[in-house]
Amino acid sequence: MTAHPEAEIVSLVDVEGVGKPISDKHTHLKGICDQPVSSPDDAPWDDSIDIAFTATPDGVGMKLAAACVAAGGRMIDYSGDFRFDSAEAYASYAERIGRGPDHAAAGLLPRSVYGLTELHRDAIAEASLVGNPGCFAVSAILGAAPAVRDGLIDLDTIICDAKTGVSGAGIKAAQTFHYPLRYENMNAYKIAAHQHNFEVERELSRLAGVELRVTLTTQVVPLCRGIMTTVYGQLADSSTTAEQLYEAYEDFYGGSVFVRVEPPGTPTSNNDVRGSNLCVLSINVDARTGRMIVVSHIDNLMKGQAGSALQNMNVMFGLDEGLGLRRPAFYP
Amino acid sequence: MTAHPEAEIVSLVDVEGVGKPISDKHTHLKGICDQPVSSPDDAPWDDSIDIAFTATPDGVGMKLAAACVAAGGRMIDYSGDFRFDSAEAYASYAERIGRGPDHAAAGLLPRSVYGLTELHRDAIAEASLVGNPGCFAVSAILGAAPAVRDGLIDLDTIICDAKTGVSGAGIKAAQTFHYPLRYENMNAYKIAAHQHNFEVERELSRLAGVELRVTLTTQVVPLCRGIMTTVYGQLADSSTTAEQLYEAYEDFYGGSVFVRVEPPGTPTSNNDVRGSNLCVLSINVDARTGRMIVVSHIDNLMKGQAGSALQNMNVMFGLDEGLGLRRPAFYP
Amino acid sequence: MTAHPEAEIVSLVDVEGVGKPISDKHTHLKGICDQPVSSPDDAPWDDSIDIAFTATPDGVGMKLAAACVAAGGRMIDYSGDFRFDSAEAYASYAERIGRGPDHAAAGLLPRSVYGLTELHRDAIAEASLVGNPGCFAVSAILGAAPAVRDGLIDLDTIICDAKTGVSGAGIKAAQTFHYPLRYENMNAYKIAAHQHNFEVERELSRLAGVELRVTLTTQVVPLCRGIMTTVYGQLADSSTTAEQLYEAYEDFYGGSVFVRVEPPGTPTSNNDVRGSNLCVLSINVDARTGRMIVVSHIDNLMKGQAGSALQNMNVMFGLDEGLGLRRPAFYP
Amino acid sequence: MTAHPEAEIVSLVDVEGVGKPISDKHTHLKGICDQPVSSPDDAPWDDSIDIAFTATPDGVGMKLAAACVAAGGRMIDYSGDFRFDSAEAYASYAERIGRGPDHAAAGLLPRSVYGLTELHRDAIAEASLVGNPGCFAVSAILGAAPAVRDGLIDLDTIICDAKTGVSGAGIKAAQTFHYPLRYENMNAYKIAAHQHNFEVERELSRLAGVELRVTLTTQVVPLCRGIMTTVYGQLADSSTTAEQLYEAYEDFYGGSVFVRVEPPGTPTSNNDVRGSNLCVLSINVDARTGRMIVVSHIDNLMKGQAGSALQNMNVMFGLDEGLGLRRPAFYP
Repeated sequence: MTAHPEAEIVSLVDVEGVGKPISDKHTHLKGICDQPVSSPDDAPWDDSIDIAFTATPDGVGMKLAAACVAAGGRMIDYSGDFRFDSAEAYASYAERIGRGPDHAAAGLLPRSVYGLTELHRDAIAEASLVGNPGCFAVSAILGAAPAVRDGLIDLDTIICDAKTGVSGAGIKAAQTFHYPLRYENMNAYKIAAHQHNFEVERELSRLAGVELRVTLTTQVVPLCRGIMTTVYGQLADSSTTAEQLYEAYEDFYGGSVFVRVEPPGTPTSNNDVRGSNLCVLSINVDARTGRMIVVSHIDNLMKGQAGSALQNMNVMFGLDEGLGLRRPAFYP
Repeated sequence: MTAHPEAEIVSLVDVEGVGKPISDKHTHLKGICDQPVSSPDDAPWDDSIDIAFTATPDGVGMKLAAACVAAGGRMIDYSGDFRFDSAEAYASYAERIGRGPDHAAAGLLPRSVYGLTELHRDAIAEASLVGNPGCFAVSAILGAAPAVRDGLIDLDTIICDAKTGVSGAGIKAAQTFHYPLRYENMNAYKIAAHQHNFEVERELSRLAGVELRVTLTTQVVPLCRGIMTTVYGQLADSSTTAEQLYEAYEDFYGGSVFVRVEPPGTPTSNNDVRGSNLCVLSINVDARTGRMIVVSHIDNLMKGQAGSALQNMNVMFGLDEGLGLRRPAFYP
Repeated sequence: MTAHPEAEIVSLVDVEGVGKPISDKHTHLKGICDQPVSSPDDAPWDDSIDIAFTATPDGVGMKLAAACVAAGGRMIDYSGDFRFDSAEAYASYAERIGRGPDHAAAGLLPRSVYGLTELHRDAIAEASLVGNPGCFAVSAILGAAPAVRDGLIDLDTIICDAKTGVSGAGIKAAQTFHYPLRYENMNAYKIAAHQHNFEVERELSRLAGVELRVTLTTQVVPLCRGIMTTVYGQLADSSTTAEQLYEAYEDFYGGSVFVRVEPPGTPTSNNDVRGSNLCVLSINVDARTGRMIVVSHIDNLMKGQAGSALQNMNVMFGLDEGLGLRRPAFYP
Repeated sequence: MTAHPEAEIVSLVDVEGVGKPISDKHTHLKGICDQPVSSPDDAPWDDSIDIAFTATPDGVGMKLAAACVAAGGRMIDYSGDFRFDSAEAYASYAERIGRGPDHAAAGLLPRSVYGLTELHRDAIAEASLVGNPGCFAVSAILGAAPAVRDGLIDLDTIICDAKTGVSGAGIKAAQTFHYPLRYENMNAYKIAAHQHNFEVERELSRLAGVELRVTLTTQVVPLCRGIMTTVYGQLADSSTTAEQLYEAYEDFYGGSVFVRVEPPGTPTSNNDVRGSNLCVLSINVDARTGRMIVVSHIDNLMKGQAGSALQNMNVMFGLDEGLGLRRPAFYP
């Protein structure tokens, strides 16, 4: 928040490094943010806290939410805990990802909102609890939403082929992301089984007004930041042109601060979004096969996570949606 | 050929560096191959030459072929010049890529064979002219061929989402592949318009026995070598399992030296193929959407180009197909 | 300047893309800075301009300076044109880099200041012309200055072994920085002949009060941003400890906003500085050989170039030296 | 050994994956080497074994050596266990790296030879035990040896500034080599305290005939394979030219299969050696400061480890020194 003019950090909570400056662990913050880390046990919910960000694993945020809400606070949770507004939906999600069906704060679920600002801006403004969306889901949903809402593609033909940088896997070392094994490597993983698949289907189903299913393929390529998702769908009307699609996308996202729809024929790349909160969309038609091909670019750590969270916070507190977030991509 | 026990280089022809050792330009060859470069003007076709490799742009190989064949030689051409065995097919291809429809050696086209060894082994053995296939085409065709031949997927639902390393763009410097603009970048290009799309459709149509169309999306990711193509197709029978698909693929490629079909559930990655002539296939089913998802890995410079050429040479001269090519992936 | 609260861009001048938004060429600036590019011919020096930044090749800035100064403007030049405050010094430099000895604005040289803020803060505040320092020079000089000034090392034993990311070579594509030839490559270049060697010697000589010579080895490693220079010097008193050196460095840089001297034993890396205007110094002694080993880290595009320029601008206009520049390293 | 025409693998021993094919762990070996892994307990020393390679941590090889030698076998050990031919030397080394001074097979040390082929070819041919040298040591020693032996530089001025790829740290994941923390990072580590420093000094002292000390700085840059060591030394006679140095180096390495000394002015880079067993040397003089600057390139996994081991094996069994090792650098 050190770059956000309206936010002030009350406390930084972690289970490691308690009592030490956060910059001991994240040395790039030395001199920028040297606030000491608090233990979860010493982090009271009181009225000095307007909002909490819980970047915790599945199952943790749901245990903290009741105390937060009771104290009049609001919460943006990074896990899947509050991405679904009913116990039934949560149970379906939980089953898919191999967790138990019970939610520790099921009673709060109706007060939670799926935190994709461009789809739920008004509800987010009022929400106590926001389930910050999954990074793949952000790129896939933003890439498909206008075509789905407007019935421009057959709903049973949606394929999202997603490529992510390695930072999507988190900061903990793992064999598969050891530099020598990763620098010239790429692979698909959790094929047809990624945890974000469920929320993509749920949000697109809402927009379509019917239940639909989506193939989401998640793949890792050797860069640090960035997701490029190529969204395919059979055009409902095979004579639809890229220009017509573009208009529909412009109409959908008109006025959105952080979605940029490029006119057909404009080159787009990860360089357009890396380090920024932008989603950049390239709109294409394969006329010979009658398919829509939308390429959706985000930075998984910004619009795919922390940037979205800040954007939601701005909306929740009636601030300018882009406050603290309007910066260009990191280049080169 | 310095590593091939049955091949000897007669001459190395280039327009640059004539008279100087090839290792002046490609310094990694110092002490390995210091043969001087000959000018095209000084490269006679005589009976000391059994086979010529023409790694030349579109339109060059076709001008050289007649002299070669007249002298009793054979040729493996890396461009699109001999990938099609009729003037009609060539004209269709040429139109798609924006070249004129006339082929300088149209009379020789019926004697040419598409050089994907696994599909045309017998014809290649007899061929005078081999059109070495495009790198994207190798990965896409090998990934789709068994399912197409056996009617396991709907033929109008094939999507090939291909990711390539930067070496696919050749060795000449270009702004878009300048290190600072490429190291953390990825992008799609020539969307629905890549020159290899045509040969993918042609070969898969042959296997299917009907004309089919394919969406091929070509994308660049920041690694040097490797293509990973994710092939999607709606299952003709939605109850088909990954194991059944696997059997069909095993049946198709059984005995192939350089295609390895991995049992369902086996992780695969670019590390399995980089620096080798292998194609490694991962076979998957998305049961919820009834889709086949095959991930096809090759090294674009090996099985995607020079390795395929050597493999074809081995077949053309009745040698062990793997001679000079059986080496593990470069690791790490 | 879009992130600098006190600066406003009057005009952006280039020979390419005149009349088009700067964001056409640098697409990451879309929506951030879409100001049109002016031709050099249409860039009048008038009193609306307080300061000009000339990121031009050697020999260009010197031709523009007279008009700028005559109009009451000030200039920060990125080339070697104004790094030396006498015609004699310039001639020596020019000879070393193979240029003619004459300076087009020799009369202005006494009004120019070498733009390394930490060494010339007071003079920069008053300067009309600032010669922004070379990136290697910044890292080498900051790494050696305190030891040289305080006589802690033998002045004829200074070796600066510098490693730079590829962005140091500029944005123009070149064969040697083509991604496939660079991704796993490293090399030394211009050995004992780099153009920045001269300014390193000149500034360190000033500090020492005697003429000294330095070996500067410039090397490229496969990253985009960052310079790590390892500075060696034989300790004048071989019993000097790392702690004593540290105190000398702290004393020298105390109060500097952008130089951080780490206590002995603290790990440092390029991650500490990438994307920031910081110089981070690691202070070490090899007791067995009696040598000082200082590792100096900067981001070549920030403290090594544009960041230093902004820092100098702040000083020239009496602003807070860190204005618009206090941001953490880009992580990860 | 699958690529070595005279070697056959008797057994592959590991503590993990016992009973399973080695290619289960190292999947790039599938179809190339699928031999099962044996437990250390099931690995008898018998006369079917001519030679053992022990790529084990410090302290392991020394426990295995007696049984090996008693059974008439020979051993090439990758650790520091047999790099020193006396208990005294070992104790000095052990002290420096923080191990106890006692060697479990001290009696065998006089039969061991330091495995840098170019320096000890004749002794290696007769040796029972070879201590394969450290990767940094190979690059530093080969870069300095001729100048040291011939007295061309002052012996108390040798600085070896070494940059290594990440594979030098081994295959086990660690936070500091996690892809997102490493891809744009570089840092020095174990400053003035690297374990290879000792063997560099010992070997160069042998050549000089007097005890000397060397500063060795070890640094990690973001590539996988490769070491570039820049060796500095004050010229004994400051008028020595690069050509004279070159002649001395050529004289020293004349006839060596795997050391290539490039004539002054020839560009060299990691691309010249990556994937090969070569050491490539660039010879330079900084005439203004009277310094020698030699840049030494190796692939740390080849000439820096496994390649050197095979080269030594060839010498030990009277085979052509380059057998199984003459392959070009992996390019690009």
